[in-house]
Amino acid sequence: MKISARNVLKGKIVSVEKGATTAHVKIEVGPGQVVTSAITNEAVDSLKLTVGGEAYAVVKASDVMIAVD
Amino acid sequence: MKISARNVLKGKIVSVEKGATTAHVKIEVGPGQVVTSAITNEAVDSLKLTVGGEAYAVVKASDVMIAVD
Amino acid sequence: MKISARNVLKGKIVSVEKGATTAHVKIEVGPGQVVTSAITNEAVDSLKLTVGGEAYAVVKASDVMIAVD
Amino acid sequence: MKISARNVLKGKIVSVEKGATTAHVKIEVGPGQVVTSAITNEAVDSLKLTVGGEAYAVVKASDVMIAVD
Amino acid sequence: MKISARNVLKGKIVSVEKGATTAHVKIEVGPGQVVTSAITNEAVDSLKLTVGGEAYAVVKASDVMIAVD
Amino acid sequence: MKISARNVLKGKIVSVEKGATTAHVKIEVGPGQVVTSAITNEAVDSLKLTVGGEAYAVVKASDVMIAVD
Repeated sequence: MKISARNVLKGKIVSVEKGATTAHVKIEVGPGQVVTSAITNEAVDSLKLTVGGEAYAVVKASDVMIAVD
Repeated sequence: MKISARNVLKGKIVSVEKGATTAHVKIEVGPGQVVTSAITNEAVDSLKLTVGGEAYAVVKASDVMIAVD
Repeated sequence: MKISARNVLKGKIVSVEKGATTAHVKIEVGPGQVVTSAITNEAVDSLKLTVGGEAYAVVKASDVMIAVD
Repeated sequence: MKISARNVLKGKIVSVEKGATTAHVKIEVGPGQVVTSAITNEAVDSLKLTVGGEAYAVVKASDVMIAVD
Repeated sequence: MKISARNVLKGKIVSVEKGATTAHVKIEVGPGQVVTSAITNEAVDSLKLTVGGEAYAVVKASDVMIAVD
Repeated sequence: MKISARNVLKGKIVSVEKGATTAHVKIEVGPGQVVTSAITNEAVDSLKLTVGGEAYAVVKASDVMIAVD
């Protein structure tokens, strides 16, 4: 499957924390660069996400803001 | 200003393309890792975004999806 | 590629309208049910989206609201 | 009230699962087509959402991605 | 129609700027407080949005970030 | 830090409710106008958000919908 989302960053899962309904998954996409994702517990189970596994952080371009110092 | 968004990736602006109302800004946040952002033309002007400048790509955790092969 | 987004609706592309930077793509996902998507022109080109083609509308659960009469 | 969101899919609520703060509500919008929504528990109470009730899944066009095989 | 989105701010439209596909609509929701919205041109036409009209800015809670100085 | 998000509404925190992973923070941005935000518990801790503190509600223009009666 190819997706229209412009941002697909490959990395390794460094943490999976399930809540009551919402889980937080962290992926290291570069040295010292960790991306945090909030998804459903259901998606964690469906994709069998576990620490150490390879995964992609996917973000639609319209969800990316820019900041400057 | 500190923001609740969990993802703040530092990089260098590699392209700024203005449309009629919406601009696309690309930031290289790591070697070969380019993040694409769709923001208003107004924000590009307000933040004086230009190619070569330092900037951050900012993404709320709830806007990050996870994918696996 | 499997994605965490909980909503993946299969359909047929019924319209592709490119703007200066942002395109609108409409997919019929059921009889009389058309889903409208706003994505980058770049994604339209990259995925070679054209009228009549099969495609999926993909939506993260946290981007779905509920309304009642 | 009329809303700018381009996607308003009518259906029947098939599940309501409250978490600590975030609820997951599923709506069947067509035969075999279930849409999952993550909203606040507060919204579930305010709209009195219950299984079997009629409801709409509402999605802004800029939150819809497109994928192809 | 009642919607799950927790934020519905009433105001007056102070500007409508159509682009090629995406429009920017500004609503004054309080003295000196202007909210900017990016929606489809199609929605502007469908809702007949014009300067001076009353309207609501609607935002899902999961799309609101918090910042501090 | 300056951010591209067009909507930055100043106010006072009136409630902070942590869930298992997701917190709800409410900010009064004008007389009787309360904005609800859903962010990670982690962000609440990182920004030391507490009732009575000053804070900003930040929303990207593409996440604002418009509604009319």
